[in-house]
Amino acid sequence: MKVRVLVRLKPGILDVQGAAVQRALGGLGFGDVRELRVGKLIEVEVDAPTAERARARVDEMCRRLLANTILEDYTIETDSAEHLAPPGAVR
Amino acid sequence: MKVRVLVRLKPGILDVQGAAVQRALGGLGFGDVRELRVGKLIEVEVDAPTAERARARVDEMCRRLLANTILEDYTIETDSAEHLAPPGAVR
Repeated sequence: MKVRVLVRLKPGILDVQGAAVQRALGGLGFGDVRELRVGKLIEVEVDAPTAERARARVDEMCRRLLANTILEDYTIETDSAEHLAPPGAVR
Repeated sequence: MKVRVLVRLKPGILDVQGAAVQRALGGLGFGDVRELRVGKLIEVEVDAPTAERARARVDEMCRRLLANTILEDYTIETDSAEHLAPPGAVR
């Protein structure tokens, strides 16, 4: 079962990397960027009989290792939602 | 217009960070992880009249700065697909 985890800094936390990228884009002529934040994408293939079970398992991984829940929020998405783009696709 | 970019290492490229995380998870008792890869999540708020225009603009940003297209693939998702989870949501 494929599970996608999105890890983002919480809204109040300063995103230094995002600010640097936004500034660099501005220098390249992309002045139309109003906000930009950088987070982590973690794609996990986990042995689980159902999507629910996989999601619960990955949620536990997030709480124990993948996310720093003091600074970061995370979102878990499973394949069953059928909107996960295949790696490499430009949609 | 909010646009989400997912940047991943191309399939053939060794993901050292992913391998390290997978190993650490194994040490915590998560032996059911078959594969794990780490990528970047970039969320951009861009001034554009339509989703198509925003997507085209962000595609240009990816090619010029956000992704290293020799090593990385990227996927662009727009809000209009209406499946983007709000930051902080656990789905």
